[in-house]
Amino acid sequence: MAIWGHPEAAYFVYLGLYALQHRGQESAGIVSSDGLHVHKHVGRGLVADVFPDPGRIEILKGHMAIGHNRYSTTGSTSITNSQPLMVNTRDGVLAISHNGNLSNSGTVRRFLENEGSIFQTTSDTEVLAHLIARSKKADIHEKIADALNNVQGAYSITMMIQDRIFAMRDPDGVRPLCLGKKDDAFIVASETCALDLIGAEYIRDVNPGEIIEITVQGIISRQFALPTKGHRCIFEFIYFARPDSKIFNENVDKVRRKLGKNLALESPAEADIVISVPDSSNTAAVGYSRRSDLKYELGLIRNHYIGRTFISPQQKMRDFGVKVKFNPVRGILQGRRVVVVEDSIVRGTTLRQLVKLIRQAGAVEVHVRVSSPPIIAPCFYGMDFPSREELIANQKSVEEIRKYLGCDTLHYLSMEALLDSVPHEESGYCTACFSGQYPIAVEEQIGKFQHEHSAQVV
Amino acid sequence: MAIWGHPEAAYFVYLGLYALQHRGQESAGIVSSDGLHVHKHVGRGLVADVFPDPGRIEILKGHMAIGHNRYSTTGSTSITNSQPLMVNTRDGVLAISHNGNLSNSGTVRRFLENEGSIFQTTSDTEVLAHLIARSKKADIHEKIADALNNVQGAYSITMMIQDRIFAMRDPDGVRPLCLGKKDDAFIVASETCALDLIGAEYIRDVNPGEIIEITVQGIISRQFALPTKGHRCIFEFIYFARPDSKIFNENVDKVRRKLGKNLALESPAEADIVISVPDSSNTAAVGYSRRSDLKYELGLIRNHYIGRTFISPQQKMRDFGVKVKFNPVRGILQGRRVVVVEDSIVRGTTLRQLVKLIRQAGAVEVHVRVSSPPIIAPCFYGMDFPSREELIANQKSVEEIRKYLGCDTLHYLSMEALLDSVPHEESGYCTACFSGQYPIAVEEQIGKFQHEHSAQVV
Amino acid sequence: MAIWGHPEAAYFVYLGLYALQHRGQESAGIVSSDGLHVHKHVGRGLVADVFPDPGRIEILKGHMAIGHNRYSTTGSTSITNSQPLMVNTRDGVLAISHNGNLSNSGTVRRFLENEGSIFQTTSDTEVLAHLIARSKKADIHEKIADALNNVQGAYSITMMIQDRIFAMRDPDGVRPLCLGKKDDAFIVASETCALDLIGAEYIRDVNPGEIIEITVQGIISRQFALPTKGHRCIFEFIYFARPDSKIFNENVDKVRRKLGKNLALESPAEADIVISVPDSSNTAAVGYSRRSDLKYELGLIRNHYIGRTFISPQQKMRDFGVKVKFNPVRGILQGRRVVVVEDSIVRGTTLRQLVKLIRQAGAVEVHVRVSSPPIIAPCFYGMDFPSREELIANQKSVEEIRKYLGCDTLHYLSMEALLDSVPHEESGYCTACFSGQYPIAVEEQIGKFQHEHSAQVV
Amino acid sequence: MAIWGHPEAAYFVYLGLYALQHRGQESAGIVSSDGLHVHKHVGRGLVADVFPDPGRIEILKGHMAIGHNRYSTTGSTSITNSQPLMVNTRDGVLAISHNGNLSNSGTVRRFLENEGSIFQTTSDTEVLAHLIARSKKADIHEKIADALNNVQGAYSITMMIQDRIFAMRDPDGVRPLCLGKKDDAFIVASETCALDLIGAEYIRDVNPGEIIEITVQGIISRQFALPTKGHRCIFEFIYFARPDSKIFNENVDKVRRKLGKNLALESPAEADIVISVPDSSNTAAVGYSRRSDLKYELGLIRNHYIGRTFISPQQKMRDFGVKVKFNPVRGILQGRRVVVVEDSIVRGTTLRQLVKLIRQAGAVEVHVRVSSPPIIAPCFYGMDFPSREELIANQKSVEEIRKYLGCDTLHYLSMEALLDSVPHEESGYCTACFSGQYPIAVEEQIGKFQHEHSAQVV
Repeated sequence: MAIWGHPEAAYFVYLGLYALQHRGQESAGIVSSDGLHVHKHVGRGLVADVFPDPGRIEILKGHMAIGHNRYSTTGSTSITNSQPLMVNTRDGVLAISHNGNLSNSGTVRRFLENEGSIFQTTSDTEVLAHLIARSKKADIHEKIADALNNVQGAYSITMMIQDRIFAMRDPDGVRPLCLGKKDDAFIVASETCALDLIGAEYIRDVNPGEIIEITVQGIISRQFALPTKGHRCIFEFIYFARPDSKIFNENVDKVRRKLGKNLALESPAEADIVISVPDSSNTAAVGYSRRSDLKYELGLIRNHYIGRTFISPQQKMRDFGVKVKFNPVRGILQGRRVVVVEDSIVRGTTLRQLVKLIRQAGAVEVHVRVSSPPIIAPCFYGMDFPSREELIANQKSVEEIRKYLGCDTLHYLSMEALLDSVPHEESGYCTACFSGQYPIAVEEQIGKFQHEHSAQVV
Repeated sequence: MAIWGHPEAAYFVYLGLYALQHRGQESAGIVSSDGLHVHKHVGRGLVADVFPDPGRIEILKGHMAIGHNRYSTTGSTSITNSQPLMVNTRDGVLAISHNGNLSNSGTVRRFLENEGSIFQTTSDTEVLAHLIARSKKADIHEKIADALNNVQGAYSITMMIQDRIFAMRDPDGVRPLCLGKKDDAFIVASETCALDLIGAEYIRDVNPGEIIEITVQGIISRQFALPTKGHRCIFEFIYFARPDSKIFNENVDKVRRKLGKNLALESPAEADIVISVPDSSNTAAVGYSRRSDLKYELGLIRNHYIGRTFISPQQKMRDFGVKVKFNPVRGILQGRRVVVVEDSIVRGTTLRQLVKLIRQAGAVEVHVRVSSPPIIAPCFYGMDFPSREELIANQKSVEEIRKYLGCDTLHYLSMEALLDSVPHEESGYCTACFSGQYPIAVEEQIGKFQHEHSAQVV
Repeated sequence: MAIWGHPEAAYFVYLGLYALQHRGQESAGIVSSDGLHVHKHVGRGLVADVFPDPGRIEILKGHMAIGHNRYSTTGSTSITNSQPLMVNTRDGVLAISHNGNLSNSGTVRRFLENEGSIFQTTSDTEVLAHLIARSKKADIHEKIADALNNVQGAYSITMMIQDRIFAMRDPDGVRPLCLGKKDDAFIVASETCALDLIGAEYIRDVNPGEIIEITVQGIISRQFALPTKGHRCIFEFIYFARPDSKIFNENVDKVRRKLGKNLALESPAEADIVISVPDSSNTAAVGYSRRSDLKYELGLIRNHYIGRTFISPQQKMRDFGVKVKFNPVRGILQGRRVVVVEDSIVRGTTLRQLVKLIRQAGAVEVHVRVSSPPIIAPCFYGMDFPSREELIANQKSVEEIRKYLGCDTLHYLSMEALLDSVPHEESGYCTACFSGQYPIAVEEQIGKFQHEHSAQVV
Repeated sequence: MAIWGHPEAAYFVYLGLYALQHRGQESAGIVSSDGLHVHKHVGRGLVADVFPDPGRIEILKGHMAIGHNRYSTTGSTSITNSQPLMVNTRDGVLAISHNGNLSNSGTVRRFLENEGSIFQTTSDTEVLAHLIARSKKADIHEKIADALNNVQGAYSITMMIQDRIFAMRDPDGVRPLCLGKKDDAFIVASETCALDLIGAEYIRDVNPGEIIEITVQGIISRQFALPTKGHRCIFEFIYFARPDSKIFNENVDKVRRKLGKNLALESPAEADIVISVPDSSNTAAVGYSRRSDLKYELGLIRNHYIGRTFISPQQKMRDFGVKVKFNPVRGILQGRRVVVVEDSIVRGTTLRQLVKLIRQAGAVEVHVRVSSPPIIAPCFYGMDFPSREELIANQKSVEEIRKYLGCDTLHYLSMEALLDSVPHEESGYCTACFSGQYPIAVEEQIGKFQHEHSAQVV
């Protein structure tokens, strides 16, 4: 998230981070500048934790700001990994906000260390900062392009240096990134829901391989690399993005409904009602209901207050983790044959407990329908999936999973139906988590920094 | 919320308070005991704020515990008003957790002050503690009954003293209160969703005018007063209770769906889709959709992270307060004639902004349907409505409200249809907020304690 | 500490509490008022912890304020015991700040409980609030006098109610209390060092048995009880008060020097240097040095940062508790025969470790001189001594104590020399801790409230 | 502060940091390791603030640890400047704890930035980390020596990398650094008072230009540079070090007493008593008293609780800043001719207020004696003096200063007498603050990093 050209730049980034909170809950931060003085505030936790009062925003003066919600995929959860990363270079203070994952960061890091570089964080963003600072190119725009040509992976990045903001997206276009306008200010954000909240108009997506420079002169665009045939993350449509966003040039809710409809076509069920696992599966469940002519019901109530409930060790084994989050509605489920629409299954542990709760509430049959194919491989481009061993579909057949979940029938959406649900005008998709075919080379063994307990008190 | 007879009593009350968080967000607290030693932890904010780690629960030892989520209706928000209230009496430490509102507390308080009593809080619960401590009756059970016969209003109360727990409900049965069982432990809670979460079985409601005493011998029940013809709060069904709870012997979600269906019958609309204002109106909207044969759509996305967003003074006038909470889904609303189902209208300010947002997202017509009658009078029995002057339906006609909201049509559910939607086997309802007819005498002018800024640091 | 008649009343009380911090470190608090609105802020810990920023003072508006540093002698350390205590009575909000200890509070409390009173704290101050509120007397001044006539013990109290402040001192005059003036404002404080800090002029002491009422009309004084022959706490002179204060009409530092001189006369030592246990014994050590013609040296350095050091369990047995607080200066002690002047010995554990440290630093002889007699009995009038069993002089002879401490010689000041060191113009002294003769009847078994872990979060 | 070879290494560093708290109050931190896993905890404030409970120490496992109390001289006060600095290099995690100031850090930093290095802090310690990481030398020992040969200034440094600890001191020996032993563990600390506290034995000082490596094999020593003729900071003796420490092979208290004696010889006074400005001038005042035969008195009481008192804007002009810290003892000062011994005068503002307070307490004459020469030049080797313009002796003559202070006579110790008071066996001293002659080349204009408000929340 970045804004150039608004007197309340940091405040609007703050609101935008709220809208994008679903993309990362580990830490949040904003760096602002008036072109001369740079201000920073970062911290652990939700946006509301890091910015508990307006005073924290007021010190972030200037007409430019970039912000970040961190969602840990590499590196430890230490505060030192919080973003935006801010470093001093010969060209001035450089602030970087990075969404995604560099897939060759280990190699580049080892190279840099051997050259004598020091690292203070474990995030791959610091690798990028080093590459920019070390580039021999003439100006900062060229240096950034030079640095990007030395990294691989998935990244949607905003940077602030001197009097300008840069936005860039990897040549495969894995993560979304869009450009908007509010009065005279330009905004860059991962999803359009951030533009909606602050009342900005959507202009277009940042293109794969494009770098956009925003200054007082306006926007300069160039390709720092040719786009590939495209490997947009299909899982953004399935689960990660907000349904009210438009990403990759398409409304997320429209795709999710199509997923639900295709799921109903592929795997209908002899049942009485359709329920969703709220809130991420709601749209797909409505789609399933519409196509199958089964009634959509609110069979599970989600408790939105749970945040940080802790479960006592003695009770851990008894499904309390799921019960504090979801409560089945007995009046709806009792005596019914129920279709449960879920967007995806990772480990299967939560869904297994949910099936049990639904049966305890009186459902006579439970039919699980998943609006995506089985996840069999981890993501190295920015999704925080567990290791292969923990992915249930990597270990068990569909029938074994059905038994594990304890449902009567289980169907996953086919890859064909998935691809039929998403738009194809623009370019292709990365479906590595379903196929194990990685379009961008990866270093599976990502090294961890050696210190384990690292904390800072303010 | 109270538990008698479980080694992890405080932990289960903690979980129950999570389930009941919607009933009060101002402060939370638990008092536990083993019959000899009493332990207390209370604080401001959500359950998760007050109990940030298991350590706070672990000190709450004992097989008995009562808990409370405070929802401010009388008294200031000072920490000293946090519940459970704990006082020392000649009979030992008495802890009280009180849901509802005593409608004659001002009078009784003045009487007690004139008798020489001192008050350290501004809550009406302290009035009750004084009455119990001063009662000349022989035993604690009799003293409580004696005290209750001197107060009027709405109350569902749990108390802990010595080795026993008491639960009681006012003779009008205004607020819900239910009794459950888990293994050998008895549980008392405002709503059954708390029983569900901790895996307890619902036994029955505590009856109007009933006092239940729970000891090692089990349960003793008696009527401290004859029940009236009954004045159960009908607004619990409309909005306040959770849809997955059973209150007043009926599933809340079932009533809400009936409200939606009756609303569709009374005021159909020429429209394309039905949307709800999530989450409280979801069930009524599904009911409306089912009866009207209009498609139910997820047209508004609610951001559940917002908690404590602050809006900058410059932006306050521009609807940001609503926008950080709700985002319309353009792909669904664009070009559509939309029915918006809302459970109730208090001031109308939020709904007005929502109508505007929905139109900005492209809706061609907006038809508001409210699943309750106009609210014209404040509540003195525990709902935190504003003054008469701020209640929009007290000031404007339905047509004036429609103009204010900016919608094409507006319909409220009729009182007849409302009463048709709720069960009548048991007893009657309080509908004072819709009719202005108060079934229990009230002192409208409730005095406030004199200190204004009162805070305590730990 | 109380101020009447200054626009920055709370701020000056805050400064005064700093000056009086040595009288209590458990909690601090201020209540202010403009005669109509009452404001309160209390919390656990030092003044600096409770008032970390000016904002906490700014809300304490009004021209009247009373404050308190709590030093736990009765009751638990719970926040609910923090003072000033604030209660609502028929006469308005009453705030009480109490220094001392009521010696019959248990009896009065049981009486009040049997009359139906409830208690929310375990402090004896609440007993006083009940007595005032229940008094049948005509006006508040009379009610306070009536209440005081029903309690016994040591107390120096300030109260605020309506538009006036009251200050009162027990008939025995056990604790100090003085009256001062700054411009048009009146100030009441335990010691004159608080007057000095805020630039106020000392007028006189509040007399034993006197109640002073401060209003816009000025000061009204009356005796609510006849003073006894006087039992001023002699330990205030020996240790508790600050050396730069004047109490009981005499400079503390002057008395302490006299104690040191008399000690040198009574028990000279064949030695090279005199050192003190800083800082409380500095003045007596200077007096000893002056009279004995032994050189005064700074042989122990005190670390003033230690505050809250924790000692690991493995190291607890190895004197670390004393070592983090004091470091001997080897260059001064090496090869010397050392007189160590200490103001008093309670348990003896710290002094024993100090003697060891002094020897390790090279002292060839260690002669301990104590500027007070052996403490053989606990205090029930406000000093936090341990039980009789823990008082070393109650258990051992002087020679046994010398052996325990490991010093070459040990001498305590005699009672005669002690009494010779203090002024006698005014009235007598309480020397109960040295004699076991209690001038005011006491209930040795002071009941504790039943709850053990009680905490409140803000 | 560093320890090698103790199972409770971090705990002893924690105690040592307490003993050394006077050397820095801005931030504190410890890094520990078992040779494989590195643990870190740093934070703002005093040791007691950063380590409020044993849990923060317990996570710092391992038999090696280094710690730091930061005292800001360069760089902002941001948490990112807290030490120890921890960076990852090709040789593993390197932790550095640095006392002193590099006088050519700006030049080296600009060189490194031009080479493409990035900086995340504004401290000169990061410069050193870059130099070590970039060194082409074969092993880590050589790399450190190589790096040190590229920096100038004053530094006493401990480092931890892999399984070893390094300690080093600049060739001029400006700051103290000593080596100790406790059982089988080696300890390195700035002052011996840290050794005393943990019960370690003093072995010797780390020599100027020496680097010591501590491993399982024991100690390896080498000179990375030849020592100069020596420029030990004479101000350590005058003010900075603790009187119970031995630095530069001499007891600090012995030197301070000599300073006081020489001061009495050079500038006797016709007076009645000698008082000190506690606590830093106590020893010199005792020395003055001894030589002059004037009585040493405790005329000023210091309040050790003040920590973070705030002064209201309205009261700022009225000396409250000094009054909360010091209270004059009227009984001692009244009618007396008073010699006030102060160790040094920087701006003179505090002393001016003290003189006023002493006069208000009744002193008839005030004679100020300063146990060091006039400070006319800032320090670039680690003392936090203000700019030249703020140093009163740089702007005014002694007579002008006397008038400003409002005292009757004023004498500074001469340079000759100062040099006569300190030992000369070993090497020379830096007296730049008194002479303006800097023995090590300095860059007076030290650049500040560009961000101003930078904070991190945990």
